[in-house]
Amino acid sequence: MKTKTDVLVIGGSIAGIVTAATGKTLYPDCDFLVVRKEKEAVVPCGIPYIFETLHSTEKDLFSEAVLSDAGVQVAVDEVVSFNPRDKICRTADGTEISFARAVLATGSIPKTLPNIQGIDLENVFTVPKEKQYLSAMHARLSACHKVVIIGGGFTGVAIADELHKAGKDVTIVEGLPSVLKLCFDEDFAIAAHQMLISKGIRIFPLDGLKEILGDTHVTGVLLESGARLETDAVILAIGFQPNTAIAQEAGLPVNELGFIKTNEFMQAGSGYGSMRPEDAKILAVGDCAEKRCFITRVPRNIMLASTACAEARIAAVNLYRLSVARIFEGTIPTYTTMIGDTAFGATGITESVAKEIRFKITTATCEGYDRHPLSMENTHPQIVKLVVTRESGLIIGGQVMGGSSTGELLNLIGFAIQNRMNIYSILTAQIGTHPMLTSSPISYPLIKAAEEIARSRWVG
Amino acid sequence: MKTKTDVLVIGGSIAGIVTAATGKTLYPDCDFLVVRKEKEAVVPCGIPYIFETLHSTEKDLFSEAVLSDAGVQVAVDEVVSFNPRDKICRTADGTEISFARAVLATGSIPKTLPNIQGIDLENVFTVPKEKQYLSAMHARLSACHKVVIIGGGFTGVAIADELHKAGKDVTIVEGLPSVLKLCFDEDFAIAAHQMLISKGIRIFPLDGLKEILGDTHVTGVLLESGARLETDAVILAIGFQPNTAIAQEAGLPVNELGFIKTNEFMQAGSGYGSMRPEDAKILAVGDCAEKRCFITRVPRNIMLASTACAEARIAAVNLYRLSVARIFEGTIPTYTTMIGDTAFGATGITESVAKEIRFKITTATCEGYDRHPLSMENTHPQIVKLVVTRESGLIIGGQVMGGSSTGELLNLIGFAIQNRMNIYSILTAQIGTHPMLTSSPISYPLIKAAEEIARSRWVG
Repeated sequence: MKTKTDVLVIGGSIAGIVTAATGKTLYPDCDFLVVRKEKEAVVPCGIPYIFETLHSTEKDLFSEAVLSDAGVQVAVDEVVSFNPRDKICRTADGTEISFARAVLATGSIPKTLPNIQGIDLENVFTVPKEKQYLSAMHARLSACHKVVIIGGGFTGVAIADELHKAGKDVTIVEGLPSVLKLCFDEDFAIAAHQMLISKGIRIFPLDGLKEILGDTHVTGVLLESGARLETDAVILAIGFQPNTAIAQEAGLPVNELGFIKTNEFMQAGSGYGSMRPEDAKILAVGDCAEKRCFITRVPRNIMLASTACAEARIAAVNLYRLSVARIFEGTIPTYTTMIGDTAFGATGITESVAKEIRFKITTATCEGYDRHPLSMENTHPQIVKLVVTRESGLIIGGQVMGGSSTGELLNLIGFAIQNRMNIYSILTAQIGTHPMLTSSPISYPLIKAAEEIARSRWVG
Repeated sequence: MKTKTDVLVIGGSIAGIVTAATGKTLYPDCDFLVVRKEKEAVVPCGIPYIFETLHSTEKDLFSEAVLSDAGVQVAVDEVVSFNPRDKICRTADGTEISFARAVLATGSIPKTLPNIQGIDLENVFTVPKEKQYLSAMHARLSACHKVVIIGGGFTGVAIADELHKAGKDVTIVEGLPSVLKLCFDEDFAIAAHQMLISKGIRIFPLDGLKEILGDTHVTGVLLESGARLETDAVILAIGFQPNTAIAQEAGLPVNELGFIKTNEFMQAGSGYGSMRPEDAKILAVGDCAEKRCFITRVPRNIMLASTACAEARIAAVNLYRLSVARIFEGTIPTYTTMIGDTAFGATGITESVAKEIRFKITTATCEGYDRHPLSMENTHPQIVKLVVTRESGLIIGGQVMGGSSTGELLNLIGFAIQNRMNIYSILTAQIGTHPMLTSSPISYPLIKAAEEIARSRWVG
């Protein structure tokens, strides 16, 4: 069968959905077709929560109405070959689709450890963004009591907390000295690490997986340290890699980390800082597209829904004509996770990364509470850390530990970073406060942290 | 008795506390003395909540440690005369204080209706920021069943919701068509109005107080409409006026709304856009100091803790030398209140104010939820409205209805307004999202509202 569309979006998770739905509103006369493998797409940030809080993958799905209401066509199929020159692709069911513009939103796939013995045993899982896999995994885990999670990054930690809430006996194995070490500075990472332990989650730091034991099913793991743990299941949460098989077969260039090269308009081809007419018709967004750090400017392998959505909105507008106001200037890594009722969030770069790459910085960490006065019910401690360049006072990083307002407070800091604001923009900010919603105006930790940094620049 | 200090702060509520505590850290070699009437200061935003949520004024006090830890002296006394030329003031207990710098932080006092018959009856209250008064008022209200609140602004609404929670029979009398009409556009104000009614709070809109009935105690009120309500107490929540008696006696100029004229460095004297050496030694901050709207540039009578804190931080740094990075560029009005578990917040100017003063604007209102997916527990609807200038796309107002993240989300919008950001800064923002903390990345109402406005500028 042959078919054609104006805009073909390959991949229908968050980046594909947002590109298509947004694009259709901006170019209402164009046809938009999304080709994706599964009928329904899971909400990526919600995946850890299917194991207890949501109780089911079914409860973690994007509403299909987002695409249908927007007037976007969806085909449940898989693109098996892609020819950017002739603007044709072929799908698994034999359809040939010709297009005027194509957007690669093929996402990422979980990393695995192919050389580890036992990796193919039953009850060894990764965490892909696939409904069928996750539903089956959920069902299998329900029958397990002991679970070992390899990797204490955001995914591993969130799943550990959920499985623990579900009554499982949970162990995290982490190669670094603490969980979340890559996203947070030591003080925040250690706080999260200790909080997990205090809840009864076992952590093996500075250790790794050597072998998975068992006959057909997992029965245990052997760690590099020699420790041997009994377990009913193993979850590999060791990160993701961009899914670029189709793009590479089609000859689209990838960068040194394996991501499809894209420029600031999200055009795939020659990459950042380049604009060639021949790149204008193929775009790439989300986890498969090149990521550069907004601050350090170097390629990084950070894949986040926040970045994917921003890229998708930018790609959508730049499909047929270009918007100078909507270009992608680099990834602001913004992570948030919950352990119990404590939220941990980070945005921009950490103090340790900043020092490693030799930015001269000042930091301040201030503690307070997320409501006021302290006698208010459900008050939660709030700690805010700012990382600021010594020379210019620009904000380049923030970390927050707190209650239910942590997400949006972190977004305020991320917004300040992305708009290249300095500490004075925060210091003079008229922060609205309310007893049940925010910290006290006199001890608002974000302001206190900015003040501490400003003081060191003012005195002496 | 005679005494002297480097910096004298007159008034020890929020503006005075922040000026003194911040100033002392920036000028550690200077003595700071705060003179205030009461030993302890109440947290202004917490006042409505003493009536039920906090159960007591004692639980709504600023920690005295903020001043003592900073090394600031406090005198419980009252300044009765102030001589800015000779830099001397006298207090009620007869002390003469000479100073190098003085900061007027004399706050505001509740408006009253002196010509209304019965205004002096027992159980007729205003809402001053005074601990003794509020404690007595709380005790008296505990014994009342029916309460009439005159004024449906932020204070009236918050107190009404609290007294209702405490089991009182509450009636609001409001001269405008709905409560909160001055802070919100009609859609938000009506939503709040309906929510109060649905909880069982009676509202008399488009009505006013004509007479308070009773012999020694209030027994009822007669409204302008002729309605006659039985009540055990009346609370006047009809706004505040700057407390500038001392300043005026001292000859300091006030503006047409009765506020002490101040410039951008918070120096009292010739006012905005002016800098005279003779103004440098007397500063004014908080509710008594001149307020101009950041957007319209005109004087307004908006008195908020958020503004007071920002002014205080700016005054503190500019006491002895000037910081070009820390000037006060006008008030960003940011209000938040709660009705039950729904937060209502507004920042910047409303659509109706913008139109009234002939800004050409575009607005968009988008609905969503504060968590995702929707199956997540405790998900609360979230509605975001943006007010943007048609010509430049600058954000000049925002309104939010939502759950516990409303305060910080509103602060993000206020921050964008204050930093003169446009809708593209929001559209390209990499908003971090988490199922338990924020809206979904694909339907984040703030982004959707910015998108809707951008679309109207892009298409056609």
